[in-house]
Amino acid sequence: MTRQNLITSIYKKKSFLCVGLDPDIHKLPPHLLQYENPFIEFCKAIIDATSDLCVAYKPNVAFFEALGSKGWYALQAISAYLPEDTLNIADAKRGDIGNTASQYAKAFFEEMPFDAITLNAYMGKDAITPFLSYEQKWAVILGLTSNEGSKDFQYLISNGIPLYRHTIEKAMTWGTKDNTMFVVGATHPEGLKDVRSFCPNHFLLIPGVGAQGGNISEVYRAAATSEIEILVNVTRDILYASSGEDFAEKAREKALYYQKEMAALMMC
Amino acid sequence: MTRQNLITSIYKKKSFLCVGLDPDIHKLPPHLLQYENPFIEFCKAIIDATSDLCVAYKPNVAFFEALGSKGWYALQAISAYLPEDTLNIADAKRGDIGNTASQYAKAFFEEMPFDAITLNAYMGKDAITPFLSYEQKWAVILGLTSNEGSKDFQYLISNGIPLYRHTIEKAMTWGTKDNTMFVVGATHPEGLKDVRSFCPNHFLLIPGVGAQGGNISEVYRAAATSEIEILVNVTRDILYASSGEDFAEKAREKALYYQKEMAALMMC
Repeated sequence: MTRQNLITSIYKKKSFLCVGLDPDIHKLPPHLLQYENPFIEFCKAIIDATSDLCVAYKPNVAFFEALGSKGWYALQAISAYLPEDTLNIADAKRGDIGNTASQYAKAFFEEMPFDAITLNAYMGKDAITPFLSYEQKWAVILGLTSNEGSKDFQYLISNGIPLYRHTIEKAMTWGTKDNTMFVVGATHPEGLKDVRSFCPNHFLLIPGVGAQGGNISEVYRAAATSEIEILVNVTRDILYASSGEDFAEKAREKALYYQKEMAALMMC
Repeated sequence: MTRQNLITSIYKKKSFLCVGLDPDIHKLPPHLLQYENPFIEFCKAIIDATSDLCVAYKPNVAFFEALGSKGWYALQAISAYLPEDTLNIADAKRGDIGNTASQYAKAFFEEMPFDAITLNAYMGKDAITPFLSYEQKWAVILGLTSNEGSKDFQYLISNGIPLYRHTIEKAMTWGTKDNTMFVVGATHPEGLKDVRSFCPNHFLLIPGVGAQGGNISEVYRAAATSEIEILVNVTRDILYASSGEDFAEKAREKALYYQKEMAALMMC
């Protein structure tokens, strides 16, 4: 998906919502467990219920891998089912040396039709560039993450600036705003503002809203640009809004709540 | 596998060799392509030919994922086939927030019987600790990697010490020498010496020998302790020693060459 198509989709749907897909066998509505592959049934129902309200989906690869080859099969099935008008992000957080990174790129961009993949840049340039050689595909690089552990290393100051800034600034030289975005957690509103001071025109993927405590209007004020250029991810709040047979309906209600909040912010 | 069992195995086999398993469909001996799952045939033959010469195996998960669910099935089959007397490391370089890290731990330590997994600590403590709650399992954390890109961030100086030292020193407080090791590339002999100055008693997993240019005797002098406590990984040199029907025999010859070099160093 191109940058322009993503921006167009955001304005058309009045939404910058990304729905995370973390299917957890222990949290699935019990009636789905009768199916041969409950992950596929669950994710398809969530997608059907929310696709007009969001502009991106982010399946979390770990939850699929936890089921072994059956889970991997489900991930492949879901990747093929995701809509064409959403940015479909494999949340895989891969990062390895060049020849290995090429294999991961093959897995997520060729073997499966994902538009984007989350990546960890600790290993440097050759861990990222193999993903940038694909047309209309995106590298979504970890900058300042939403979790508690983000404070362990990402704020370390070197040459006067924190590690997350080193990571983002250097990665900005590897790709362009057409194929690179950065993860910056909603749990760091001051970090979001800081990132916008040196990274004004790249999309940011912003997790941490909902269960992790982040706030959409605060995020919007800190990081939205004249072309919006943010994707705010919500996972558990939507996915597990109900564990009953009405799970998809309740997921839609939650997604609609977030979409309306986003539409209101975009109108201001 | 316990630390003591690993040390015993090193002395018994007179080897600290780890064989990397990176099956690349384009490099496999052509006669294997007739099999339904050539990866399984290839890896099993390499394991049969080398298991008395090495103390660890390290399947590289990316190469399996590149084949989709068929590759994941092969990884599961290989993980079950690996010997009991070797430390079997999933080279996955995972790293994600706590609830996701738990899913990866489930995938590699429960769904598959790996003894260890490589991890990326950029996201901090909660990305690592879920792996440390398993008995006799190991977290193998990236310190100073062997690739060119390692220079991009890992040498950044903060509070007078490089990022790789921050990473290793902090991670040493999360686990113990019985469940944590660190990746330090053979391509940084001065880095290996430096790591030993502040991390004297943890195992180090050392990639970068062979195709990447590292040298075993230099590595040994820089990093071996009185209990050895190093695992030196070789992949391409062994795996692709021949592309003919004699590939396993030639792989054994290469592994034997490395084992003999290691035995000689251990005798000094």
